[in-house]
Amino acid sequence: MAIFGTEQKPVPQTNGISLDEAMRVISAARKKAEEIGVMQNIAVVDAGGNLAAFAHMDGAWIGSIDIAKNKAYTARAFDMTTEALGAISQPGEMCYGIHASNDLKVIIFGGGIPLVRNGTVFGAIGVSGGTVPQDIEVAEAGLAAFDNAS
Amino acid sequence: MAIFGTEQKPVPQTNGISLDEAMRVISAARKKAEEIGVMQNIAVVDAGGNLAAFAHMDGAWIGSIDIAKNKAYTARAFDMTTEALGAISQPGEMCYGIHASNDLKVIIFGGGIPLVRNGTVFGAIGVSGGTVPQDIEVAEAGLAAFDNAS
Amino acid sequence: MAIFGTEQKPVPQTNGISLDEAMRVISAARKKAEEIGVMQNIAVVDAGGNLAAFAHMDGAWIGSIDIAKNKAYTARAFDMTTEALGAISQPGEMCYGIHASNDLKVIIFGGGIPLVRNGTVFGAIGVSGGTVPQDIEVAEAGLAAFDNAS
Amino acid sequence: MAIFGTEQKPVPQTNGISLDEAMRVISAARKKAEEIGVMQNIAVVDAGGNLAAFAHMDGAWIGSIDIAKNKAYTARAFDMTTEALGAISQPGEMCYGIHASNDLKVIIFGGGIPLVRNGTVFGAIGVSGGTVPQDIEVAEAGLAAFDNAS
Repeated sequence: MAIFGTEQKPVPQTNGISLDEAMRVISAARKKAEEIGVMQNIAVVDAGGNLAAFAHMDGAWIGSIDIAKNKAYTARAFDMTTEALGAISQPGEMCYGIHASNDLKVIIFGGGIPLVRNGTVFGAIGVSGGTVPQDIEVAEAGLAAFDNAS
Repeated sequence: MAIFGTEQKPVPQTNGISLDEAMRVISAARKKAEEIGVMQNIAVVDAGGNLAAFAHMDGAWIGSIDIAKNKAYTARAFDMTTEALGAISQPGEMCYGIHASNDLKVIIFGGGIPLVRNGTVFGAIGVSGGTVPQDIEVAEAGLAAFDNAS
Repeated sequence: MAIFGTEQKPVPQTNGISLDEAMRVISAARKKAEEIGVMQNIAVVDAGGNLAAFAHMDGAWIGSIDIAKNKAYTARAFDMTTEALGAISQPGEMCYGIHASNDLKVIIFGGGIPLVRNGTVFGAIGVSGGTVPQDIEVAEAGLAAFDNAS
Repeated sequence: MAIFGTEQKPVPQTNGISLDEAMRVISAARKKAEEIGVMQNIAVVDAGGNLAAFAHMDGAWIGSIDIAKNKAYTARAFDMTTEALGAISQPGEMCYGIHASNDLKVIIFGGGIPLVRNGTVFGAIGVSGGTVPQDIEVAEAGLAAFDNAS
């Protein structure tokens, strides 16, 4: 099937983070979540903001599946943590209202962190399932695994 | 934070498939995809139809991210393969139009397969990134890994 | 193809701003953005609120693509700057909640400015990618290019 | 404003196609459209499927603005022309129903073409505003401008 076959597909290219790296980030985040006893949803997006990998820990909130993905999207979309974006998006602040934009995928509380290496953004991690400080702690563990691999 | 702390969350429960099983299914599907040389998106949903795990292989179609997730959703939502659903959803057939229902998450071509053990549906796998026959082949490799673990 | 051919289409009409003007506005805004060292998304809508032209500067936030377009839409939709609309849309103010209306395309922080000439609105520019003051500065440079052409 | 200032932004990176390249593609497509006397909407997306540049020619259908953008998205999302995708997405064919997926951004008639150089996809062009053969002709002119620059 010439128009559809793999023989015609372009050379594989990673769009920022590779699957192996994304899986390593998720494993590190999951390990931290188990250490602190919180059931988390963990998402990684690539440099294009597209989902690279995802894991729903057993018993984690199903309502947080979307939030984890959207935290990762947001952190890449604006190249900052969702916590930092949240600080400038409260009522009366500079970006108030941004949470209703971008097809409702913008999350303005902590748990989304860009995955940066040598000043370049390769993607982002988003974690949701615990308190916001717990989500941030787990996301930072994922980031550390990405940094250490550089 | 009593209303939010982990101490008040219910005992973790898997809703069908566990994360470890979902990851094993994804690994087996990925291995098959590498064998046949196709870059795939691979999704697993649990018994509630919610995303359990996901992997985007390097260079796989970004447009197939949603389709893989939706194939998995559809296979669990109707407890049949998306191929079987597709056969009865063509113009003039019994379920024509169903692809526009359920918030547009219903996929009616092959690549989504329920994950069944001892007659119980634990979730489903959805694969998208190659031709439909390739997607089915990879999804079946994932199913086999689930079956063999029983 | 008589029902579809260009021979049956009405005489081309610009709906406010022309493409050439929109491109000139975008070029001027881009030049300002480069001067102040900010990577911006720059959108221009016509008098009907429809997208006339768009440019994503290399490395600009991908999350600001939608916001730039929506700032331009908003500025034309209400014939005022998004900054002015934002001032009356905070909690407790007259238009609180408007950011959730109009299919979520209403942006209530600065960076969207109507393109006005001789008292008539020809369209609007929306800029997103920097701080709000930077976005406004760049949008004003685009407006100046439109004014100067009159 | 430390958390938001450009001084903290990562190194600018093009995500596939650069703005200058996207603008060159649009100019070439526009020139072809003028030659054949059709008012077109012309969109270019980057390797992440995000909008890079857009132009609405004076008098072009406003209903085709979205279609042009979605053709470009589709061509990148599946790394094939929308014409090729359409051939396998008719009733009874392998991918029937795909037009209802991916948040309704999948277009299955001609006018969307991947922008490929040395086997790598840098983005895609989408054109809408004329007959499908006209849209394809204009999109191919855009592609030629991208190829020639290599």
